[in-house]
Amino acid sequence: MDLPVIQPRRADLGPPVFPTIGIVGLGLIGGSIALAARDRWPSTLVIGVDRADVLETAMRMHAIDVGASDLNVLAGADVVILAAPVKQNVALLAQLAEYLERPAVVTDTGSTKREILAAAAVLPERLTFVGGHPLGGAAVGGLAHARPDLFRKRPWILTPEPGTSATAVDALSSFVAALGSTPSVMPADEHDRVLAFLSHLPQLTAGALMGVVGKAVGADGLALAGRGLIDTTRLASSPSGIWRDITASNADQIGPALDALIAVLQSLRDDLPAAGRLEEVFADAAAWREQLTTRSTL
Amino acid sequence: MDLPVIQPRRADLGPPVFPTIGIVGLGLIGGSIALAARDRWPSTLVIGVDRADVLETAMRMHAIDVGASDLNVLAGADVVILAAPVKQNVALLAQLAEYLERPAVVTDTGSTKREILAAAAVLPERLTFVGGHPLGGAAVGGLAHARPDLFRKRPWILTPEPGTSATAVDALSSFVAALGSTPSVMPADEHDRVLAFLSHLPQLTAGALMGVVGKAVGADGLALAGRGLIDTTRLASSPSGIWRDITASNADQIGPALDALIAVLQSLRDDLPAAGRLEEVFADAAAWREQLTTRSTL
Repeated sequence: MDLPVIQPRRADLGPPVFPTIGIVGLGLIGGSIALAARDRWPSTLVIGVDRADVLETAMRMHAIDVGASDLNVLAGADVVILAAPVKQNVALLAQLAEYLERPAVVTDTGSTKREILAAAAVLPERLTFVGGHPLGGAAVGGLAHARPDLFRKRPWILTPEPGTSATAVDALSSFVAALGSTPSVMPADEHDRVLAFLSHLPQLTAGALMGVVGKAVGADGLALAGRGLIDTTRLASSPSGIWRDITASNADQIGPALDALIAVLQSLRDDLPAAGRLEEVFADAAAWREQLTTRSTL
Repeated sequence: MDLPVIQPRRADLGPPVFPTIGIVGLGLIGGSIALAARDRWPSTLVIGVDRADVLETAMRMHAIDVGASDLNVLAGADVVILAAPVKQNVALLAQLAEYLERPAVVTDTGSTKREILAAAAVLPERLTFVGGHPLGGAAVGGLAHARPDLFRKRPWILTPEPGTSATAVDALSSFVAALGSTPSVMPADEHDRVLAFLSHLPQLTAGALMGVVGKAVGADGLALAGRGLIDTTRLASSPSGIWRDITASNADQIGPALDALIAVLQSLRDDLPAAGRLEEVFADAAAWREQLTTRSTL
């Protein structure tokens, strides 16, 4: 027998920014948005779109109120959040107008922003698109790792096109702030440039490094590895599918980032064994690392 | 008033492998060897050589019994452990014969092994040199972070020259095993090649990456950083002095390691935006990363 769950009363929650929330893709990010929204506004209706087995898990986690595997269910949503991989979000965007008849704010949670912003040009006027990117900070993906505090004190970048309704941007900003995040607004091209360095370059570097080291020393050699290699290659267990999309949609920014890193590595290589360049690179790195640990909220 | 410290009796400790231990350089490694040896064999005499202020700290930590700032104090040692930076160890080695009149085993704890092994050729026959490298695994250096369990279940590589007395190698191996480590024997050139990939390449990569990212996005951009950049650049706060020595003494192995990484990064760059190469690199990386987490004792 299932006992009824008694919800504790929460004081002063304020009215929901969006009474009905639609989330397409219930992975780590989509699932955490659902949990955070329900936590913040118990009266909000949370609609999830995903495969049947994912929806069942989301129901069991009390992450969503309604779930379906097609977009019909989103008809009454005040906000639709596309939380699938980048390329899928772009494809979904083209289908939304058919299902959303009422005015709504549409956003996404993808790691690159120019491509989806360009794709959003097809939306009819009643649907206002504001690109979004929550920088959650969890290492492991999937609904099973979703949690309502994933966004607490973490940045959430919004990338509206110039001329986007300020009402929509403000509403979305209030919404993501209420989920615990620290929203900021940035042009899409600046977002994609900054993220190429902050996220995409470290990801490619960790993958390249892990392969080079593994191939050179073999499994027995890896048994001798210290904390340094373990930390430096932690990203190397990320699934390649998500990263193929991200890389493809941000290639023009990732290219120069890779060039910059290759140039520094080549300068260290050319300076061996004198290693004067090394002191320069290390002093620079230590100073930036200090800034990183001071500034990051992780 | 200082109260006398009552040492608890330890059961079945066995006789010390080396009744008198000399340690030159009381940083994280030297200090941890001192603490581990005293913990293992309370009757062993531990002699430390370092600056006066470091010796005072080591005394307060009960890491050493006797301390001095010159090598005279090592006269009665059965084993001398050089735990200073690589270049200093090489310089110290040339002076040891003058101070050590009795037969003794001499070892070091440096991260590269060929240079010190070559330098050890100057030692008289009564002093048997066996290169050593404990892979401790702590992120922060300095005596303040020393602890007796630093080496527990961690690899400790010994690199004797061919023809070195098996008695000396066995004694040193028993000694480091008694400190909690897992000793293994490897030729010095193989050690230096493997460590160029396992340790030196990740270190240079983390430094190069941190500088490139910091310069591109600035301090405000770093505030947006996620766990990925933080993990990938953790090594970038390492002091450059130690790494200048390591790089200079292993340049011929680090060069090809850098070349291999640059080649993979360049192949990823050349394949943008198609990103077919990316899937290959990521699949490879994920497989090696799995081996790394399975094999490492950290």
